[in-house]
Amino acid sequence: MPKRHIKPNTTLFPVPVVLVTAGEGDDANVATINRISSCNAEPPMIAISVRPGRHTHTLIEQTGEFVVNIPAPGMDALTDYVGVTTGREEAKWEARGLTPTPASAVGAPLIAECPVHLECRVVEQVKLPSHSLFIAEVVAIQADEDAMREDGEIDMGRVPGMIYASSAVRERPVEKVRVDELRERLTGGA
Amino acid sequence: MPKRHIKPNTTLFPVPVVLVTAGEGDDANVATINRISSCNAEPPMIAISVRPGRHTHTLIEQTGEFVVNIPAPGMDALTDYVGVTTGREEAKWEARGLTPTPASAVGAPLIAECPVHLECRVVEQVKLPSHSLFIAEVVAIQADEDAMREDGEIDMGRVPGMIYASSAVRERPVEKVRVDELRERLTGGA
Repeated sequence: MPKRHIKPNTTLFPVPVVLVTAGEGDDANVATINRISSCNAEPPMIAISVRPGRHTHTLIEQTGEFVVNIPAPGMDALTDYVGVTTGREEAKWEARGLTPTPASAVGAPLIAECPVHLECRVVEQVKLPSHSLFIAEVVAIQADEDAMREDGEIDMGRVPGMIYASSAVRERPVEKVRVDELRERLTGGA
Repeated sequence: MPKRHIKPNTTLFPVPVVLVTAGEGDDANVATINRISSCNAEPPMIAISVRPGRHTHTLIEQTGEFVVNIPAPGMDALTDYVGVTTGREEAKWEARGLTPTPASAVGAPLIAECPVHLECRVVEQVKLPSHSLFIAEVVAIQADEDAMREDGEIDMGRVPGMIYASSAVRERPVEKVRVDELRERLTGGA
């Protein structure tokens, strides 16, 4: 197959989209993040990248803490909205029916409507040209009871998370099924 | 919904799985990586985490370069295999029918069978307790001609990539369809 060059970008897929909460009390804010991955196993660490211009960036720098909330099925409109509205202009919580609820190990709240929450404490901030990479230890995880298996692990079959859909995918919904076909192969078939 | 605590880990889903090539010529190696994300937009940067014990870690430290190869549908058995075999024990290329082909901007080869390739040059190595986080600029991207749209962008409908499937997902294949349902909502329905 002939290869062609395209302009370098951060093409990577599929990637998750999550809701990150930062700040405390009335200052707490919600942001949509899709630059996120696990970066260390022992102890468990997660890294997220945030632009310095975002309110969430300021709040994480001030507190050194954030929560990764994995969205539930049906919350896609929510993530669309949260990502394009800045917390400095509007309270995002009430406008979208989100409920802040206290975390156990950090000051930032959980989003009650999300099924899984990773409470994170920053261990290192790497300043890159357009973003800060916040490397954080996962200090606590909470999950809805009905999102868990009997052995106490999270049941990713019930809470599959959400994939970031680029405009390229939006224009070709008929082909989206292939992700599921792949998953079927990965899981050994139905 | 009542929340329950679980032991902190790096639970995050869905996440992509990619094949990373590093090293040059006969020393080139392939590794499966699922700790990966974009971490900077301008210029485009990708971060991957690799354990120091892996051969790929040594090769990236030596050369400062690697290639992210996004797998094609049907390559799942391949990624299963590559991830559990170390390059120091066996040549992974021939054993799995993989073909190294020269990259354009880095010394590490592309995997010809993969549809999309991000050629990366390390700008910073962050040593974490169990992994190194390699932050790298994407200096070139190549893709199969038939993986691209007419406007020259990658068509993620045709090359959807691959999701890392944990054992939790494997045990409940009947529920995997929900990822696709989510994507349908994200793309505005069929």
